Amino acid sequence: MEAYMTDYSPPLSGSAQDETRELRPKFNADGLIAAIAQDATSGEVLMLAWMNAEALAATVSTGRATYWSRSRGELWVKGDTSGHIQEVVEVRVDCDQDAVLLRVNQTGGACHTGRDSCFYRVIAPDGQTLSLDAKNT
Amino acid sequence: MEAYMTDYSPPLSGSAQDETRELRPKFNADGLIAAIAQDATSGEVLMLAWMNAEALAATVSTGRATYWSRSRGELWVKGDTSGHIQEVVEVRVDCDQDAVLLRVNQTGGACHTGRDSCFYRVIAPDGQTLSLDAKNT
Repeated sequence: MEAYMTDYSPPLSGSAQDETRELRPKFNADGLIAAIAQDATSGEVLMLAWMNAEALAATVSTGRATYWSRSRGELWVKGDTSGHIQEVVEVRVDCDQDAVLLRVNQTGGACHTGRDSCFYRVIAPDGQTLSLDAKNT
Repeated sequence: MEAYMTDYSPPLSGSAQDETRELRPKFNADGLIAAIAQDATSGEVLMLAWMNAEALAATVSTGRATYWSRSRGELWVKGDTSGHIQEVVEVRVDCDQDAVLLRVNQTGGACHTGRDSCFYRVIAPDGQTLSLDAKNT
């Protein structure tokens, strides 16, 4: 993969960070930012993954959702192996810029289990038991 | 706040974790799990915050979204100060159980800036500039 610009400006403090019109991502101690992927059409939340600076830059630049695989320790262009790509419609950042929200057109299931979304189980009122949602029963 | 049950069973390995019907949250090194809040009616993604075991148990038990404030180092019942409470309709967990998704009825703005959602800025194609979304211009 080609190298992407990753020299982001540093975060500002307090409300300046909330109101700036510059992308100043706040990466955690591991150099990562949380990324939520949401289906652009249905609004379904598909998955939560992580990006380093290069993954974030690549996602915006290529329009293909690209994450950092914490388990494999490498960039992960979603769908390169599975074919289940995410075409990025829009990338948003939250108030303090430590999370991003991708609105995507998802091909196939977003989840490695084959399901549309990774969030296919609902926590029961007992707080301990899980049940499959209506799409997956 | 009363004490909540926090003796969750430990995560399983591989696909067993994906398919178990037991809640076995995978907390990170700081004892936290990522929590996405989504408006139950509109599907709008409102915010990303963090929960420790007690916050997760309290959220399910009370039906009020409860997070762990990393900046203040304390449990944070959303809306206790601002009045902008989140009534929890459903809590989901993802495949490897290191993230939860709350579907909520949100009173007032979810964001501390007063906006409905924390994700009010869109990253421009240049990858560096932010613009306010249509609701906030």
